[in-house]
Amino acid sequence: MHTLTQFRLCPKSRSIRLALAEVGINVAMVDERPWEWRDEFLALNPAGELPVLELENGKTLCGAYAISEYLAEWAQSDQKEKPGHPVPLFHGSIEHRAEQRRLVDWFHGKLDREVTQELLVERVYGHLLANAPQAPDPDTLRAIRTNIRHHMAYVNHLAHSRSWLAGDAMSFADMAAAAHLSCIDYIGEIPWDAFPSAKSWYARLKSRPSFRALLADRMPGIAPAPVYADLDF
Amino acid sequence: MHTLTQFRLCPKSRSIRLALAEVGINVAMVDERPWEWRDEFLALNPAGELPVLELENGKTLCGAYAISEYLAEWAQSDQKEKPGHPVPLFHGSIEHRAEQRRLVDWFHGKLDREVTQELLVERVYGHLLANAPQAPDPDTLRAIRTNIRHHMAYVNHLAHSRSWLAGDAMSFADMAAAAHLSCIDYIGEIPWDAFPSAKSWYARLKSRPSFRALLADRMPGIAPAPVYADLDF
Repeated sequence: MHTLTQFRLCPKSRSIRLALAEVGINVAMVDERPWEWRDEFLALNPAGELPVLELENGKTLCGAYAISEYLAEWAQSDQKEKPGHPVPLFHGSIEHRAEQRRLVDWFHGKLDREVTQELLVERVYGHLLANAPQAPDPDTLRAIRTNIRHHMAYVNHLAHSRSWLAGDAMSFADMAAAAHLSCIDYIGEIPWDAFPSAKSWYARLKSRPSFRALLADRMPGIAPAPVYADLDF
Repeated sequence: MHTLTQFRLCPKSRSIRLALAEVGINVAMVDERPWEWRDEFLALNPAGELPVLELENGKTLCGAYAISEYLAEWAQSDQKEKPGHPVPLFHGSIEHRAEQRRLVDWFHGKLDREVTQELLVERVYGHLLANAPQAPDPDTLRAIRTNIRHHMAYVNHLAHSRSWLAGDAMSFADMAAAAHLSCIDYIGEIPWDAFPSAKSWYARLKSRPSFRALLADRMPGIAPAPVYADLDF
């Protein structure tokens, strides 16, 4: 069995957990706190970033970009060991695939920088680090909430005009987006009712079997928002 | 002809210019200063990021990730209009391709955050923005130089142990790395003589026809370092 090194509220780790479940690969999971810079972890991935996928064959894949493209190629190949019908992570014409990747970049790049990482620093890492400030900075939190509304408006616009965020079928763009929103939602910072198309798109993803393990996750010392695991939120 | 919207010292734009030249696609170039947030540019790419490739068929591809994977797929497809023999951007087994992408992520992610963007803010944007400080902050510059040496040591290690950074053949990982190093080298901040394997790897890339247009680039008001365009540096 492959092994995934990840952190429960790391959005990139979560996107890969969704992708693994959608293509039908079971993995063993190992928890890592990347900010501790453990020597053993740096030996696994010198970039010090999550997630890391160690394959049964001894190879190590580092980072959401390399792993997602690996899984996409694997799901499209004709390998014998594939069970069932893996969901393709990217599909359609090469222009359609470029649109799916544009949105992956949006969520794993722009949304991550402007919201998810900032919010995790303010609301999660503070609980986990011994000497970090416990109370979130109100100005920072206000700026993050403004950014959340901008990003939610964009997701709402995409979900309103398309079946899935990048087009007619689910792609890794939906998984990347849902991975980030699930972290933000754990902390209770998504105003779902203001963005009905985004909410109904997220409800569809949330009810997929691939999402179950994420909804069952709990961070010690940080309770999830009441709607977090509720399929009727 | 396709149109590439880019900025001359943007490392991600440069990586795509190298990739376009290596796969044999000519483009028209349009200059953009993304920090000005022009409405016309945001209409082209709502993320406000470079580069953007507008195809002859009217489609728009946004960001180095979507464009590089598009070019990789295009170079591997059997389309009639391809001249000559395009260099593959990713190649080998799916594990080899994952290693190439790990390094693309390193350069476009980690190196970009820890060095290139910081250096451009301190040394380039200051000249281009009307009200920005003209003198670089010495503490910031010292931290950037420390990071440059860490990254150069890693590039040197890769170049010493492999023919190309990600393995036996040139890949987009080399282009991404060289794109960043070329921006840093323009400003004269690479201590080449301390990293001989990295230097000889860069010399090989620098002498390729794909590199010529980059070496001819000049930013108004900012002269390149003397070694920048020198093939015998």
